[in-house]
Amino acid sequence: MPQPMGHRRWAIAEGYIPEESTGPEPEMLSHETVCILNTSDDEEAKVEITVIFDDRDPAGPYEVTVPPQRTRHVRFNDLEDPEPIPVGTDYASVIEANIPVVVQHSRLDSRQSENALMSAMAFGED
Amino acid sequence: MPQPMGHRRWAIAEGYIPEESTGPEPEMLSHETVCILNTSDDEEAKVEITVIFDDRDPAGPYEVTVPPQRTRHVRFNDLEDPEPIPVGTDYASVIEANIPVVVQHSRLDSRQSENALMSAMAFGED
Amino acid sequence: MPQPMGHRRWAIAEGYIPEESTGPEPEMLSHETVCILNTSDDEEAKVEITVIFDDRDPAGPYEVTVPPQRTRHVRFNDLEDPEPIPVGTDYASVIEANIPVVVQHSRLDSRQSENALMSAMAFGED
Amino acid sequence: MPQPMGHRRWAIAEGYIPEESTGPEPEMLSHETVCILNTSDDEEAKVEITVIFDDRDPAGPYEVTVPPQRTRHVRFNDLEDPEPIPVGTDYASVIEANIPVVVQHSRLDSRQSENALMSAMAFGED
Repeated sequence: MPQPMGHRRWAIAEGYIPEESTGPEPEMLSHETVCILNTSDDEEAKVEITVIFDDRDPAGPYEVTVPPQRTRHVRFNDLEDPEPIPVGTDYASVIEANIPVVVQHSRLDSRQSENALMSAMAFGED
Repeated sequence: MPQPMGHRRWAIAEGYIPEESTGPEPEMLSHETVCILNTSDDEEAKVEITVIFDDRDPAGPYEVTVPPQRTRHVRFNDLEDPEPIPVGTDYASVIEANIPVVVQHSRLDSRQSENALMSAMAFGED
Repeated sequence: MPQPMGHRRWAIAEGYIPEESTGPEPEMLSHETVCILNTSDDEEAKVEITVIFDDRDPAGPYEVTVPPQRTRHVRFNDLEDPEPIPVGTDYASVIEANIPVVVQHSRLDSRQSENALMSAMAFGED
Repeated sequence: MPQPMGHRRWAIAEGYIPEESTGPEPEMLSHETVCILNTSDDEEAKVEITVIFDDRDPAGPYEVTVPPQRTRHVRFNDLEDPEPIPVGTDYASVIEANIPVVVQHSRLDSRQSENALMSAMAFGED
């Protein structure tokens, strides 16, 4: 593979962690995930996630490292440093990396007794 | 961030607000959302949404303002000026802004007793 | 709007009409939809849909006309000329138009008693 | 059609085969699918899928052939050579072909008694 696939900057305009869940944790916990793929053969991707809200200043950056030829599926629910993401709140996110990566968004919503899913490739540009 | 991410024009070809809902409002009300992200550090995004139908002239423009470093998740259900969007009706939408923004579409359908979700990044171009 | 948004050729690699449905027709019938948006101010879009299968020659073209400033949400279930699309069968589709249009794909699956949804913007190129 | 649509390299950052299922197999088995469309009139697409994990070296390549004017909807669950994909495990995938193809991702999750769906166009580049 000649160079890593993707872009250095991605954005996800949708973002919302449902407040309730049904079913066993962690797999059926309502969650939002940003999936980051590093196709580089030898370079680690240093990724920074910034979370943008409706009515307050952004949170972050949250730092994630993705080794070469690895993927990280990061739940927004699990982000803690510098601060947790509140549930039941509209947000968006910007993902920036030092090398090209590929970014996809998904949500599992288990508020009602059967879960729902959504996914979208993020918007990438350099 | 050198310049705002995204495009000045976006289109969403899918659009439909289900007529019925199950569960507590507002969160479980069947709805369609356009999520708009403004990554600019200092410029407000002035956004106009035009809604396009199958069998009548377009509605709008609906005006939305997104401050710098903020997101707005706008439910089509809540658009009222110049006119509400009818439920149970096929539509599409065009989103135009004075600066680049990022736009994503999602739907929550709670007609049946467990909700369903879909999402797609809108189609952007300048 | 200076010129119509979108592309003249689009492809959707996913395609499958579930064989069963639960709930009132037509709205809860399991279906796949191709949503076509024509943002032109004055030109009608003449659209041809070709359906591509796993193990037989393609079907079509199916002809659809989208007037200027209108959208058409076409259910694959409803295509009849030159032949209906079989249910329970993998397929893909290519959408070609004489002017740029925007194309999005969605599915409603009501095989089980609560419906599921998916959507993706089609892949466009000129 | 002048040349095949799409790209020679695609990536899907999301990937996860749910461990449980509800309903009749094979159609309601929880699964992840990569849909590959070859719009070429006369060239077979030779496709290699590489599966990338969180904590181990990649698996593959898995070889898939798509004849001209055909689509293949390949379940990750069914990949066996050189090794099966474990369930309940985060992964991502890279799809490479000798000619341009179009690639879309979808998941059916039937862990709970009503199924959920997600889909996204893969990220393509040459």
